[in-house]
Amino acid sequence: MNRRHFIATGGAAGALLQKRAAAAGPVPQQILPGVWKFSFGKPEKITPVTTRHYAPAKRGFDGLPTVSACPVNVTGEGSRRGFLVSVPLAPNEAPYGLGLQLQSFVQRGSKKRLRVNADPKMDTGDSHAPVPFYVTTRGYGILVDTARYATFYMGGKKTVKTAPAPADTSAPFTIAPDALPAAYRRANIRERSEVLVEVPEAEGVDVYVFGGPSMRQAVQRYNLFSGGGALPPRWGLGMWYRVKADYKQDDVLKLAAEFRESRMPCDVLGLEPGWQTHAYSCTFVWSDKFPDPQAMISDLGRKGYRVNLWEHAFTHPTSPIHDALVPHSGDYQVWGGVVPDFLDPQATKTFADFHEARHVALGISGYKLDECDNSDFTGNWSYPEVSRFPSGADGEQMHCLFGQRYQDAIQSVFEKRRQRTYGLVRSSGALAAPYPYVLYSDLYDHKDFIRGLANAGFSGLLWTPELRDGASPEDLIRRLQSVALSPMALINAWYIKNPPWKQVKRAANNNDEFAAGWQEIESKCRKVMELRMRLVPYIHAAFVRYHREGMPPFRALVMDYPEDPRTWAIENQFLVGESLLVAPAFAGESARDVYLPQGDWFDYWTGKRHTGKQQMRIDVPLEQIPIFVKADSLLPLAQPSLHTADAACWRLEVNAYGEKPAAAMLFEDDGSWAPALTEVRLEWDATRRAGALRRTGPGQYEVTRWIPIS
Amino acid sequence: MNRRHFIATGGAAGALLQKRAAAAGPVPQQILPGVWKFSFGKPEKITPVTTRHYAPAKRGFDGLPTVSACPVNVTGEGSRRGFLVSVPLAPNEAPYGLGLQLQSFVQRGSKKRLRVNADPKMDTGDSHAPVPFYVTTRGYGILVDTARYATFYMGGKKTVKTAPAPADTSAPFTIAPDALPAAYRRANIRERSEVLVEVPEAEGVDVYVFGGPSMRQAVQRYNLFSGGGALPPRWGLGMWYRVKADYKQDDVLKLAAEFRESRMPCDVLGLEPGWQTHAYSCTFVWSDKFPDPQAMISDLGRKGYRVNLWEHAFTHPTSPIHDALVPHSGDYQVWGGVVPDFLDPQATKTFADFHEARHVALGISGYKLDECDNSDFTGNWSYPEVSRFPSGADGEQMHCLFGQRYQDAIQSVFEKRRQRTYGLVRSSGALAAPYPYVLYSDLYDHKDFIRGLANAGFSGLLWTPELRDGASPEDLIRRLQSVALSPMALINAWYIKNPPWKQVKRAANNNDEFAAGWQEIESKCRKVMELRMRLVPYIHAAFVRYHREGMPPFRALVMDYPEDPRTWAIENQFLVGESLLVAPAFAGESARDVYLPQGDWFDYWTGKRHTGKQQMRIDVPLEQIPIFVKADSLLPLAQPSLHTADAACWRLEVNAYGEKPAAAMLFEDDGSWAPALTEVRLEWDATRRAGALRRTGPGQYEVTRWIPIS
Repeated sequence: MNRRHFIATGGAAGALLQKRAAAAGPVPQQILPGVWKFSFGKPEKITPVTTRHYAPAKRGFDGLPTVSACPVNVTGEGSRRGFLVSVPLAPNEAPYGLGLQLQSFVQRGSKKRLRVNADPKMDTGDSHAPVPFYVTTRGYGILVDTARYATFYMGGKKTVKTAPAPADTSAPFTIAPDALPAAYRRANIRERSEVLVEVPEAEGVDVYVFGGPSMRQAVQRYNLFSGGGALPPRWGLGMWYRVKADYKQDDVLKLAAEFRESRMPCDVLGLEPGWQTHAYSCTFVWSDKFPDPQAMISDLGRKGYRVNLWEHAFTHPTSPIHDALVPHSGDYQVWGGVVPDFLDPQATKTFADFHEARHVALGISGYKLDECDNSDFTGNWSYPEVSRFPSGADGEQMHCLFGQRYQDAIQSVFEKRRQRTYGLVRSSGALAAPYPYVLYSDLYDHKDFIRGLANAGFSGLLWTPELRDGASPEDLIRRLQSVALSPMALINAWYIKNPPWKQVKRAANNNDEFAAGWQEIESKCRKVMELRMRLVPYIHAAFVRYHREGMPPFRALVMDYPEDPRTWAIENQFLVGESLLVAPAFAGESARDVYLPQGDWFDYWTGKRHTGKQQMRIDVPLEQIPIFVKADSLLPLAQPSLHTADAACWRLEVNAYGEKPAAAMLFEDDGSWAPALTEVRLEWDATRRAGALRRTGPGQYEVTRWIPIS
Repeated sequence: MNRRHFIATGGAAGALLQKRAAAAGPVPQQILPGVWKFSFGKPEKITPVTTRHYAPAKRGFDGLPTVSACPVNVTGEGSRRGFLVSVPLAPNEAPYGLGLQLQSFVQRGSKKRLRVNADPKMDTGDSHAPVPFYVTTRGYGILVDTARYATFYMGGKKTVKTAPAPADTSAPFTIAPDALPAAYRRANIRERSEVLVEVPEAEGVDVYVFGGPSMRQAVQRYNLFSGGGALPPRWGLGMWYRVKADYKQDDVLKLAAEFRESRMPCDVLGLEPGWQTHAYSCTFVWSDKFPDPQAMISDLGRKGYRVNLWEHAFTHPTSPIHDALVPHSGDYQVWGGVVPDFLDPQATKTFADFHEARHVALGISGYKLDECDNSDFTGNWSYPEVSRFPSGADGEQMHCLFGQRYQDAIQSVFEKRRQRTYGLVRSSGALAAPYPYVLYSDLYDHKDFIRGLANAGFSGLLWTPELRDGASPEDLIRRLQSVALSPMALINAWYIKNPPWKQVKRAANNNDEFAAGWQEIESKCRKVMELRMRLVPYIHAAFVRYHREGMPPFRALVMDYPEDPRTWAIENQFLVGESLLVAPAFAGESARDVYLPQGDWFDYWTGKRHTGKQQMRIDVPLEQIPIFVKADSLLPLAQPSLHTADAACWRLEVNAYGEKPAAAMLFEDDGSWAPALTEVRLEWDATRRAGALRRTGPGQYEVTRWIPIS
């Protein structure tokens, strides 16, 4: 099809098609090493890139190989519908990403309209965090810089009206169709196709191409372009527990004491809506449930707890900042509250100053920023897409950017105080990597949640498959295991009074009726939480690589093994850091399939060695979430502790897997705003079968034991 | 908010907002009695009205009262986003409609993007048959004439930046908020608001306002404007049964014989994909499973059966019409087949001629037009919204119109042959009332299906809650009861070999393992099917009113009783014709609540009289779907027959309810293209307690028995 043709002609409706900008073949401009920009027509003024808060992390590019030429050509054209971008898709090329997609993985053959939505129950592109970025097995990524609900057509088949183009023989991989989901098999994977991206309303758009040459490196470049990955404080990597929404100050203190007594690890306690005088919409003012928040925070701090506050941004008329926000807010209310225009510096300042004075100055460590996705499709009436904001954004643009600009407002407090934070947010978008905020959802399917974990790593997102309650103790433990191997180990008990291990049934739990033998469940949960605590140094090091190199700490197998098509459809396993492969188990399943990629792998629990490039059926005993350690790696494991401030958390046992374990790096983090991150090198001498810890200066990590496993 | 203000100004993005046409306050033009048209800006050339096939049924307006002035004022304005229309919404005003919405009913407070989608699992406006039309309790309807995915914001609350407008005291009804769903209670129902409709891409739009003065009359005017309602042939109102997709010719004949033998009523047998040589995409050519279709159709015809064919429009390369269609089809394939441009007369003719020659000429009675909704959101790749068609339509427009223009193509065959048909279609839209096609869905929630029945009547649609199989025999019977009281009494056994009453479990059914005591289930199902057959004359008469007066034969209670707010949220009961109220029962429920509106009502099964304006809890014995008959009405019931060609179907018993039953009208229908429809008047003499049948000429109906019930 000659697209210029159909633009120029057309029948009845053709007259309406106004060719706004058909900048066919603009020359891509290299803006960073291996990063090219195609600029089409007149791009909109409000986009993820133009409103970005973080600058690219330029130094990170130094460690990446040179990419000599832009790996794909992008074309574009305008019409009355908006702007249409086309990127070729080769036979056997598989694209991934598009943000937090909970219900699909390999995107070839799919259509996704990237619409911000709090209840993404259908696989249409609706998401808490849609990202107009994808990456393919051919080792490049594409960012379409738009704050619109763009539609991505990930390969389709045109009507053959003229002689077909010659077959493309450049495909580097052959693919095993039976390893792929049905939708993918239907998607003409063997044929040359294209990705079409339609950006509504726009008269032009900038498209960024991120070279690899590998898939992983393409994602690294995207994350570095975004500003580098977030580095959470160490305490953020401990256990989190959010208390019931109606907890009072004394209830919180009592639970905090109980956790220490019962030796259940916890670093952060989160308060849910009840802490405010009015919560839907919000006042941001402490309610009488918390008569002395300062005393509570200090008391908890002495016990090694941080406190995190739930909120959303829609500001109730009784909030002290309401009237000041009105002139700097949108023209529609949500839950009777105003919607601050976070693209307006005055709204941001009013909002941030109040948060600093009333919460952060008291010692609040961070926030859970709820409801910032678009809930108006599902029962509520969030601000419409036709809303207008003082900054000039309309509602659609604001929905696309609201999550991040809201994070900017909150971050401005922590930046000003030079204080690190880690928190939660329910919406995010493009260029999100630098934000120390983890996504979550009210959806609650365990398998979808794991798919989310695998998917989030493609698009610079962090995601927690948070634990609320369980259908059964087994479900509880399985979900807790997944949470423990995620960016944030979060138990969110916002609707249950007692910890879920005492009673998984909501009504009984809230009636203080504990399950018979709950202590055994508690004990199993403690073991899982201790596993998380043991992994804190390892996960922290993975985050340092995210921060410096843009390498996602949690990611799908295909990202590291794109040359192996058997990894392409694996959405229920994921990699953590450089050495761990996790294959979560689900309630009701006593065995599962695991695919191990190239190389040898050791079962974390038994130490048994498995050869890679094979699929295995494994038993999954309830106490064990399947974890495999790559051969020839060193795995540092801290002593289990109740929180990360405990010195035990710096004392390591190191497992040395295989014959020639490579050195592993940890990082001293003093928790400060810009930590020096002294490198701590763990080395193994295969001849002597002994290890050594080397560091450049004074520090805290020490190894108490080296354990060879082979 | 002064909207002109934000259009003219605006910050960063403001410059992009081009005011295309702000035709503030065009004068509405009365185009038909009680129907006004507001024309804004430059409307698109391809819309439901501009591509309509049926002319308005002008004569139908004669029977409606005069409406002296346009009941609401509509305003509009353009921007880069498209065209925005605003219609005021009074306090306590409840809007309904927007097409086949399966998951919501009262639309106040909701947001719906009217997107054509085959899997409308979320309540976002996605639908098989979205219709840009709504009607409110204040007795008017609004049609936004667009073939775009318009977004309807059904009332919201603006940020109060200036002094609020004075309270509106014109609301005619007070409302009981606790009778309404939660979303509705949140929707500021007591405040003055507006409906905002955003039409993307357009530079203008026509908006039609349909006066009442009652809600029901507003819907009548909309249906008459559409061309009047469809009048199915009598045989279309009998029982339907679709056979398993892989049935061969002999299997069909065998089943047909079995139904007559076992005395299970059936008028129409439907064939599923297996009848074609290739079905995804389609060839429209008989496969070798049907070696002599002509003989089969004739044989079945002699037994009183019609045959209906499944198909979709995407045309496989091996179809004899493929090559001729290519130049008249869209630029993207679906399932490897071309997409005919049914706005192009040549595509329509090629398609229709083949259907006539190969099917209709052989005696095929009609079609099931599948997959004409947009399946590309859910695993398949239908043609993209950016597709181009030779007629000038883009993919979005074509998705909005495809269902109806596809029906036009098929209808052209029946029009040419002056032959009535009744069939199925999976997508429809605005102005659909004249089409003798019933909607259906792959979704299968019984309660959603009943909500669909109540909703369809607002928007000129017909809908069947088709029966496939049941989770249990109870579920089977409950679903069959609902189907029997719907526009099409359809059993769709496309994936089960034997009738579901022999075995509800799919695998066992296909393995010829019948349930113990299946004969008892069969007997119960027969009773339900006989109930349908008894109601054929009554339902036919209701369809005549649909045809002539635009009165929906199946509709929600609120449409007849908008002055009673307790009816407003009732989505699980519906009215059939002028005298019946149906309250389906669902598997697992031994009782249900029923609300009876004003007047007295008789229980159809027991004859017990109930006073209206009350909610009751009733027991629901498995054999009985709750039906209530309005007092003072005559209900004609035919003798149960195996099909509508049986003379028994013309022999009536008439129940006379209450003291003074009003006359009831039936219509002689000879089945011809333009039947004379002789009126048959049933009258009751309260003094003599005797009835009489009066007709103007010779005919077939006769009353064998009059039964007074009071």
